[in-house]
Amino acid sequence: MGKSLGAKACDFVLFGTKGDLARRKLLPALYQLDKANLLDSETKVIGVAKDAFTEQQFNELVTTALNTFVKDELCDDTVERFLGRCHYVGTNFTEPEGYSAFHELLEPSKRVMVNYFATPPAIFGDICRCLHQQDLIKEDTRVVLEKPIGTDLESSKVINDQVAEYFNENQVYRIDHYLGKETVQNLIALRFANSLFASKWDNRTIDHVQISVAEEVGIEGRWGYFDGAGQMRDMIQNHLLQVLTLVAMDPPVNLNADNIRDEKVKVLKSLRPINQTNVFDNTVRGQYSSGYLKGSPVPGYLEEEGANTNSDTETFVALRVDIDNWRWAGVPFYLRSGKRMPFKSSEIVVHFKNPPHNLYSNSYRSLPPNKLTIRLQPHEGVEIQMMNKVPGLEQQTRLQTTKLDLSFTDTFKNERIADAYERLLLEAMLGNQALFVRRDEVEQAWTWVDGIIEAWENSGEKPKPYPAGTWGPVASVALITKDGRSWDE
Amino acid sequence: MGKSLGAKACDFVLFGTKGDLARRKLLPALYQLDKANLLDSETKVIGVAKDAFTEQQFNELVTTALNTFVKDELCDDTVERFLGRCHYVGTNFTEPEGYSAFHELLEPSKRVMVNYFATPPAIFGDICRCLHQQDLIKEDTRVVLEKPIGTDLESSKVINDQVAEYFNENQVYRIDHYLGKETVQNLIALRFANSLFASKWDNRTIDHVQISVAEEVGIEGRWGYFDGAGQMRDMIQNHLLQVLTLVAMDPPVNLNADNIRDEKVKVLKSLRPINQTNVFDNTVRGQYSSGYLKGSPVPGYLEEEGANTNSDTETFVALRVDIDNWRWAGVPFYLRSGKRMPFKSSEIVVHFKNPPHNLYSNSYRSLPPNKLTIRLQPHEGVEIQMMNKVPGLEQQTRLQTTKLDLSFTDTFKNERIADAYERLLLEAMLGNQALFVRRDEVEQAWTWVDGIIEAWENSGEKPKPYPAGTWGPVASVALITKDGRSWDE
Repeated sequence: MGKSLGAKACDFVLFGTKGDLARRKLLPALYQLDKANLLDSETKVIGVAKDAFTEQQFNELVTTALNTFVKDELCDDTVERFLGRCHYVGTNFTEPEGYSAFHELLEPSKRVMVNYFATPPAIFGDICRCLHQQDLIKEDTRVVLEKPIGTDLESSKVINDQVAEYFNENQVYRIDHYLGKETVQNLIALRFANSLFASKWDNRTIDHVQISVAEEVGIEGRWGYFDGAGQMRDMIQNHLLQVLTLVAMDPPVNLNADNIRDEKVKVLKSLRPINQTNVFDNTVRGQYSSGYLKGSPVPGYLEEEGANTNSDTETFVALRVDIDNWRWAGVPFYLRSGKRMPFKSSEIVVHFKNPPHNLYSNSYRSLPPNKLTIRLQPHEGVEIQMMNKVPGLEQQTRLQTTKLDLSFTDTFKNERIADAYERLLLEAMLGNQALFVRRDEVEQAWTWVDGIIEAWENSGEKPKPYPAGTWGPVASVALITKDGRSWDE
Repeated sequence: MGKSLGAKACDFVLFGTKGDLARRKLLPALYQLDKANLLDSETKVIGVAKDAFTEQQFNELVTTALNTFVKDELCDDTVERFLGRCHYVGTNFTEPEGYSAFHELLEPSKRVMVNYFATPPAIFGDICRCLHQQDLIKEDTRVVLEKPIGTDLESSKVINDQVAEYFNENQVYRIDHYLGKETVQNLIALRFANSLFASKWDNRTIDHVQISVAEEVGIEGRWGYFDGAGQMRDMIQNHLLQVLTLVAMDPPVNLNADNIRDEKVKVLKSLRPINQTNVFDNTVRGQYSSGYLKGSPVPGYLEEEGANTNSDTETFVALRVDIDNWRWAGVPFYLRSGKRMPFKSSEIVVHFKNPPHNLYSNSYRSLPPNKLTIRLQPHEGVEIQMMNKVPGLEQQTRLQTTKLDLSFTDTFKNERIADAYERLLLEAMLGNQALFVRRDEVEQAWTWVDGIIEAWENSGEKPKPYPAGTWGPVASVALITKDGRSWDE
């Protein structure tokens, strides 16, 4: 606070700089960091792709990306400064010869090299090997890996092993962009800086937790890619489990990266396995059929462009997750994520237990419980639902659930809410791994998820259809109502 | 809910109908109840004073009172209906002959008689005797007593004994208008309908509680009356101790009047006595000197019109109150009330303990605690202070105390917030004693307060001066800071 907040000078090397992610998210994020004076004046941004671009052509690519994807008005001075940092290396990623161009650009004694792999994971290992063969990997060189890191435990191990051949774990930064979201980071403050929650965050006071990520979009032209993964691998294994670990973890020794990640991995290890014996009790998978979204007809998953009409890939998952540890025994976590939901929404809702006795039983057979809602999107914020007396002269006290609301955009009007990638790129440059996923976390998550997918496959059952524009198959409602609870809407 | 909410027909007899309270509060409250259709069509309002008014003259008095003191625009139809209920009896309060006029007006077989004594308490007994001598007291006849009921335990016993000669305790309704306030009633809902608070309302989770009632006004022409009482008798013995009992009481068996009052009196019995041995550690009394209020000069208490320049009467009291029971051992309640404060404000603030360990010790030597604020006035509402992360890309997580706010006027836009007297008159007509003070509560409160006043008198110390327009003597700050805490501003 007060001291300079930026990172030391680095050479930020962006493999796959022509790709969708680089143009939509990474270049705009770097520009925003520059604008906020968080990049050292010596920091370079080096785009890498296989085209034989001139620096001029690369500058045009960057300018177009910024013009297209930066949301606020561009600052000309910043653009000029940013383009001044930009360099380009054209090479086939798998051929070390092309990497020799880096020797002219990098200055390892002055600037740490941060490699961002925004490429298909299949070539992560090749890139590492080429960097090595050109002797570009120093002790402090870092590598940032975009998901998906494999599609199951085995394939993730292959990729991680390939990278580990050249980099130690403390040099590897695995992205889950959910960890860069402001509201997700606020979760830690909320839990550990507030005694109102710190001291009652367990099975004595919490009834259950819901974590929902609803997407309004369908497949958006990437049918082939998505069909090979499905919602379980694409959303649950990473984003929702990461959020779950932050909600459920024990207090860490301190806020250092490995202490936090130690606690997160303990949660993952405590997830009760779901397999053939209990898969139907604890999971629902769905696939959207044609329907209506905000009044307009939309096609079903199997009618999308490029679809294989026999696909059994799920576009919706609902889970009851039990965490078998001392803190959470008896407190289910209900997870739900799907495409083509009625609207986009991500939130965590903590349902507290009811008071031990109902003094208002004349008016309420059971009192609505207190709820803490953490809205990730849209309208990021925090909300507490509680009961208050409705003003008025009725004989019988009339209670009403009312909301104490903290909207981030209203409360922090003067603070720009940074995109998740800005935070994550900055942290990678700073060398802080707290917001990145450690290898044991990835593998523990895959172990658990693989069990569910295997049980689904062995069952031979198809995902249950649900009309686009609804909250998933009816079975998803049954999953939670059989426990006497209901999804938050 | 849904069923008719009004009270059965009654004869509401208002002794002291020409007085300030009747004209400012009681007649307007009765009008509002009529407007809200909460008075039975047969209900009569019978004003009593010693003047030989005609009904016509009384109607004029009522009309003037409504025109002057009803805040919203008068409804002509309601005024007409209300005047149709109004009757007048002119009599000397102490002479039973004058009470014979009631025989024509009352119909005991059809309507319960509710007597409201808005007269000096010295004649409460006389009125009771006269009612008795005219055989007007039935088993269901009620009597509503305005404060002050005495100025100490002994004098309160005299008055209560006089009334008790003719009325049983279940016929006696002692007013403390704070109990009629919406936000005070909401306290019970807040505590017992919300597990977030219900289960952590004790010395394991609460550090201390502050109850403040700050008046902006000074003496307002009633110097003689006030000087005989002082702030301790005028505000603490009744309003602040009543609020304290509602904050501190154990959960009652149910919400019936005597079960609630049983719990309240238990709290009063548990107040640690303050006497000569500890009065200076636990109390501060002050008297305002001349000063400035919102920029304008105002006189000191001893310079007010009618002042006796030697008076030792306090216009400010600050107390540290300990409740010696299982729930509150070690949790002080700080009470503070004064005249000529910078602005009018009444609130209860519950300070929770800090989390057991501070994960943010790099940035915060100690974290600001969570606070629950119940605002009685102005801007009635509920507020939770908590810590959230400030959005932004700083390396060090920056936390900020933020407020989750529930404003009653914003939240319940369509509900009129009734004046405390409307609620209390209605409850008296309904025969529900829950919001009235039982005799044992009054006496227990006096016992405790008398001890403090006696200790002050024996000490021979004068109240400490404080300039009008400030928060009281500096010693009041010291009272709480020596415990490592501070007053909420």
